[in-house]
Amino acid sequence: MGSPVRVRLDLAYDGTDFAGWQHQPDRDTIQRRIEAAARRLYRLAPNERTPVVGAGRTDAGVHAERQVAHFDAPLVIPPAGIRAGLNGLLPDSIRVLAAAETAPDFHARFDATGKTYRYHLLTEPVVTPLQTRYAWPVGDRLSREAMEEAAAALVGRHDFRAFFAAPPGEEPRTPVRNIFTASFGQRENMLVFEVAADGFLRYMVRRMVGTLVAVGRGQLPPDRVGALLRDPELPGPRFRAPAAGLRLYRVHYDGSASGKRHSQRAG
Amino acid sequence: MGSPVRVRLDLAYDGTDFAGWQHQPDRDTIQRRIEAAARRLYRLAPNERTPVVGAGRTDAGVHAERQVAHFDAPLVIPPAGIRAGLNGLLPDSIRVLAAAETAPDFHARFDATGKTYRYHLLTEPVVTPLQTRYAWPVGDRLSREAMEEAAAALVGRHDFRAFFAAPPGEEPRTPVRNIFTASFGQRENMLVFEVAADGFLRYMVRRMVGTLVAVGRGQLPPDRVGALLRDPELPGPRFRAPAAGLRLYRVHYDGSASGKRHSQRAG
Repeated sequence: MGSPVRVRLDLAYDGTDFAGWQHQPDRDTIQRRIEAAARRLYRLAPNERTPVVGAGRTDAGVHAERQVAHFDAPLVIPPAGIRAGLNGLLPDSIRVLAAAETAPDFHARFDATGKTYRYHLLTEPVVTPLQTRYAWPVGDRLSREAMEEAAAALVGRHDFRAFFAAPPGEEPRTPVRNIFTASFGQRENMLVFEVAADGFLRYMVRRMVGTLVAVGRGQLPPDRVGALLRDPELPGPRFRAPAAGLRLYRVHYDGSASGKRHSQRAG
Repeated sequence: MGSPVRVRLDLAYDGTDFAGWQHQPDRDTIQRRIEAAARRLYRLAPNERTPVVGAGRTDAGVHAERQVAHFDAPLVIPPAGIRAGLNGLLPDSIRVLAAAETAPDFHARFDATGKTYRYHLLTEPVVTPLQTRYAWPVGDRLSREAMEEAAAALVGRHDFRAFFAAPPGEEPRTPVRNIFTASFGQRENMLVFEVAADGFLRYMVRRMVGTLVAVGRGQLPPDRVGALLRDPELPGPRFRAPAAGLRLYRVHYDGSASGKRHSQRAG
């Protein structure tokens, strides 16, 4: 057994049947499944763990088109073998898209410079069950113009306290996040909201989408979004879109991120 | 209670978790679920049945974007109430898209003048679990040209014995069917095979798609399809595509169909 090798995994999953990414006692989570598969692949004892660290802690029912994770492999298996081996041990709803050896200090979460989420809205009057697993059926009476106007206000560095809900004890260091882009696009019969930021607070995308849909339905004026960013304590209803429509679309890294963090750590 | 009213239902379902449309002892089928929902909606006794007749008897795991069915309602409920009532009693994976009162002699199966099926092929090298529920991941090394050449041979009136498999005792009256159109189209990252015909034999679409993909992979020459139509006994491997990629897309009726059949019956 040589020194451990850090492995980067690119993952996709259908989150419908899982209690989210993160470990929770007695719950079926994606992290738990991947760690269990790694334990079997590397023939570890049941009490030995190979902690798998994910870039984004997706909530229950949220999907991933491309999540990134890392773990330290206790012995060397060629990357193609890791991918095939884990996929053979994982349920069909979780797939390893790619496995690669990476720098020993690569960190899936801390090195990420941003993430992109997509939220799928089904805007047809008649909804088929072939799409509701991955979309929120909101009907066809939405004003896309109002939603786009409201979405534009999200872009930039703001205090997003009005758009998250942290369980007690899990408050983030700061509620300020920088949104790079927030826009709507049409893909077949879906209206897709895509949002990229340096990071996201808990429920932030679903709160944003819930609010934008309320704007699209005329329940809120479009300038409500900007008002909530300026005054997070503004009274009024809070909206949260269902988990099924949300997917982690990409995790962003840049070439120097790992090195930068490393020197910060060394400093 | 007045005389019974015949109701047409337009249905969509995710077939993944069902043993197909048709009743089978001790199996969870779509027909059984709809009949159970109708029994509750109309407050029938457990031993009273409201037989629901579907246009297409989709197999286990096959989906429907728009299936058509009929049943005789024991009392009058406005169509909007039938739709909402059944949807409230059905699982999310089965939806009534529309309900309507129809002519007392309308027959969902016998009046259908044709059906269109779609088969979804996922042709990317990397497959995400967000699409495999509704598609067959076949990889990116398919010759679409060869598949299109082979598909063209399917169009027209042919003996499709080489493309079906009937359980003993369920042989069709004739293995001749008329294919109106058979073609491939690209929808996002999916290659979609669409085929319309006056009727389909058991497993016919999946056998056709399995053969076309074998052609696309170079396992069979493109002219094999035409050869199998001319000589159904031709030796060689038979291919069948998995159920997940298949969906009943539309059932065709024409305005005079019901009347025609009625006069045929009266004759």
